[in-house]
Amino acid sequence: MNDAVENIDVVGYIRDERDRFLADLKEWLAIPSVSGDPAHAGDVRRSADWLAAHLRGQGWPTVEIWDTPGLPAVYAEWPAAAPDAPAVVVYGHHDVQPVEPLEEWDTDPFTPVEQGDRLIGRGASDDKGQVFFHTLGLRALLAATGAQAPPVTVKLLVEGEEESGSLHFADLLREHRDRLACDAIVISDTTMWAADVPSMCTGMRGLTEVEVTLRGPATDLHSGSFGGAVPNPLHAMATLLAGLHDADERVTLPGFYDGVVPLTDEERALFAKLPFDEDEWLRTAGDSRAAHGERGYTTLERIWARPTAEINGMWGGHTGAGGKTIVPRDAHAKISFRLVAGQDPVAVQESFRAWVAERTPPGVEAEVRIPGGGVRPCFSPIDSPGVLAARRAMERAFGHEVLFTREGGSGPEADLADVLDAPLIFVAVGLDDDRIHAPNEKVEIPLLLKGAEAAAHLWEELAGALR
Amino acid sequence: MNDAVENIDVVGYIRDERDRFLADLKEWLAIPSVSGDPAHAGDVRRSADWLAAHLRGQGWPTVEIWDTPGLPAVYAEWPAAAPDAPAVVVYGHHDVQPVEPLEEWDTDPFTPVEQGDRLIGRGASDDKGQVFFHTLGLRALLAATGAQAPPVTVKLLVEGEEESGSLHFADLLREHRDRLACDAIVISDTTMWAADVPSMCTGMRGLTEVEVTLRGPATDLHSGSFGGAVPNPLHAMATLLAGLHDADERVTLPGFYDGVVPLTDEERALFAKLPFDEDEWLRTAGDSRAAHGERGYTTLERIWARPTAEINGMWGGHTGAGGKTIVPRDAHAKISFRLVAGQDPVAVQESFRAWVAERTPPGVEAEVRIPGGGVRPCFSPIDSPGVLAARRAMERAFGHEVLFTREGGSGPEADLADVLDAPLIFVAVGLDDDRIHAPNEKVEIPLLLKGAEAAAHLWEELAGALR
Repeated sequence: MNDAVENIDVVGYIRDERDRFLADLKEWLAIPSVSGDPAHAGDVRRSADWLAAHLRGQGWPTVEIWDTPGLPAVYAEWPAAAPDAPAVVVYGHHDVQPVEPLEEWDTDPFTPVEQGDRLIGRGASDDKGQVFFHTLGLRALLAATGAQAPPVTVKLLVEGEEESGSLHFADLLREHRDRLACDAIVISDTTMWAADVPSMCTGMRGLTEVEVTLRGPATDLHSGSFGGAVPNPLHAMATLLAGLHDADERVTLPGFYDGVVPLTDEERALFAKLPFDEDEWLRTAGDSRAAHGERGYTTLERIWARPTAEINGMWGGHTGAGGKTIVPRDAHAKISFRLVAGQDPVAVQESFRAWVAERTPPGVEAEVRIPGGGVRPCFSPIDSPGVLAARRAMERAFGHEVLFTREGGSGPEADLADVLDAPLIFVAVGLDDDRIHAPNEKVEIPLLLKGAEAAAHLWEELAGALR
Repeated sequence: MNDAVENIDVVGYIRDERDRFLADLKEWLAIPSVSGDPAHAGDVRRSADWLAAHLRGQGWPTVEIWDTPGLPAVYAEWPAAAPDAPAVVVYGHHDVQPVEPLEEWDTDPFTPVEQGDRLIGRGASDDKGQVFFHTLGLRALLAATGAQAPPVTVKLLVEGEEESGSLHFADLLREHRDRLACDAIVISDTTMWAADVPSMCTGMRGLTEVEVTLRGPATDLHSGSFGGAVPNPLHAMATLLAGLHDADERVTLPGFYDGVVPLTDEERALFAKLPFDEDEWLRTAGDSRAAHGERGYTTLERIWARPTAEINGMWGGHTGAGGKTIVPRDAHAKISFRLVAGQDPVAVQESFRAWVAERTPPGVEAEVRIPGGGVRPCFSPIDSPGVLAARRAMERAFGHEVLFTREGGSGPEADLADVLDAPLIFVAVGLDDDRIHAPNEKVEIPLLLKGAEAAAHLWEELAGALR
């Protein structure tokens, strides 16, 4: 299969198309498609229209604007020639983050400029640039093979509300579930470890949030008259939450770790190959003074591949200025759990309910509120066919061993995996220092072109792997 | 000594004076001396003037108005004939609580009325009525003995700012420390257990307040990116405060119980004689669902005679609506300690500082703030001469065994004991259901007259006991 495309042809095509590719991308980046700002709703629509027109110009046989109650997505499909070829959804988004504080930008965020190897502007990395390398990659593949169609059916879905919470995305997926039927989902909205350390994400943690209220007396009581003789809900809360982790910093909810997909030795070894500087990482972690977490795991393993419980907020009693000597009537806490493959948000919620009920002391009444169903974790084993195929495509493009990462949190990816019931494959060339969501967002142009190269190889590799 | 006054004479005098006593008290109660409301400052002054004039009319040799930067106190002195006689300060206050909500009063709060055995009006019990029984008691004693002077020098100090925090009282005591030199301090501003269960308070708990802040990262962190790998200050706070009590609900600060004056078997036996209905008490405790506290002690022992630690407030992270999946930058708590005889607020503060420092986990920075020096506990052993003497006086008046109580918190009493360096003796006839600080405050007239009778005997008993 690899013989069908000579690397030189894809590379040569991409090199030849570089300037036109960048000129087109700059035109798209100039549209301020800020989904979080209602004043830019028209620009988001304009961005969708621009992309749709561009894809039609590139020869995509099917291009549609998919409306939502919010902002539109773009859908484009390029069917494979063979009717039984696998289908792959490619996910990205065309909306961008706000640009404030504007005074911290060195150039206008919507007047993209090249500075050496960098293209600077809002959306250059997150995510217009990374959507765009797919269009170049597909054209390179077709040019290099002389084929009229890719070896898999490519279904490009470019969302317009990712930066404002993907509010209507799950519904959109459900509405178009049949059109989006696929054998794998390629996500191009993440990062690599470093320009010289190409890597692929293989999973994102899920999430469930809970709120617990502990109630004692019907009113705040004078601590002189009643202190030390009735239960204090704040004491009960401190004791409850102190018990959320054991001495090894493992979460104590019954069954919490049941079914958790363990890290394989190979994945741990590949994580360990990443040049991770913990001191530097602590600086990015708000100048945290120490790494701390589940015993037996490294920092990267903790944030990527292990489930956690965090108290996000806690309050009760007198929180204003001065003193108030009371036994407070109630205490509150908001807690979130990050979940990994093999965990179910709803099961964790039920376990939390039972855990609180069992540990609530006499004289205190507990109420657990679950604000929503949570986000399921998503994960593709590093030895799964899709990941192996994408890794080969990346290694062909970068000429270098491709390592693996994961992400600590997740966005619409879990919805994609759940609704479309297909494995996720993360192919992306952004960098952590691309300043996404911040002033002076940039993308490394050589990496975008490597991304196009990897994307060209990807369809071939997947055609073989998913068949 | 008891032979010098025939009970019948004191009783007869009080019976004969009853109507005039009540008429005078009503005149005083009609003055709305609400110290907490600046609009009533003139009334508080008028109340002081009224009392001063009344005492002069009763023959007190020395009567003075003592000004403060706030509202005035009244000071009156009736020296004993013998130059080496003991001196006793009697403490009360002439200011009253606000009367709102006015619509809940069945009668006008400043138009005192008799209804059967009750006198109804603001200040009837707290504290004008209880100051007033002393004036009748002293006259009864003089009338019954035919003496021109009491057997101890009586120094009556009636504060005007007790209901608004006694802001200038400690300074006033220090300013007049020499004039107020005494061998004992009689406090008439508390309650008895019940009309048919006469009792005396023997102590009030002290207080110290502390605030602790735990700091982690310099900013709130995204829990998806950093959760489970850096210390969470809210976890650290929960763990810290969960450790404030051990399994027996004893406070874990090192040295916390060192020097605590233990309850004697006799005092515990006398507490146990009080007809205490725990279910009823739980209802008064804001419908608390269970009694809970230091193992090995009863509820009354816990609130009166044992030191405690209460979390009064705790907060950190996201406390608003909805979820926010963060590792918060900091966590805060306000904690107060109730202290009993033998404990020093400053020593407890220092112990808390050291305890926090020792238990702060790596990666978290702790700051302890101490808002003030605290309130020292006050306590008079039940076998101390003053308490024994006052108990005899009470028992002569009531014809009934007098039991003992304590109070869970304290006001200006600790200042009196500290600045004047004399033991406190609590002689009072208020009841817990007198509705002090509430609408329809009342006092039981028979108890006021019993109070006058006890006060008549008190000077004789103290003259013998303190000599």
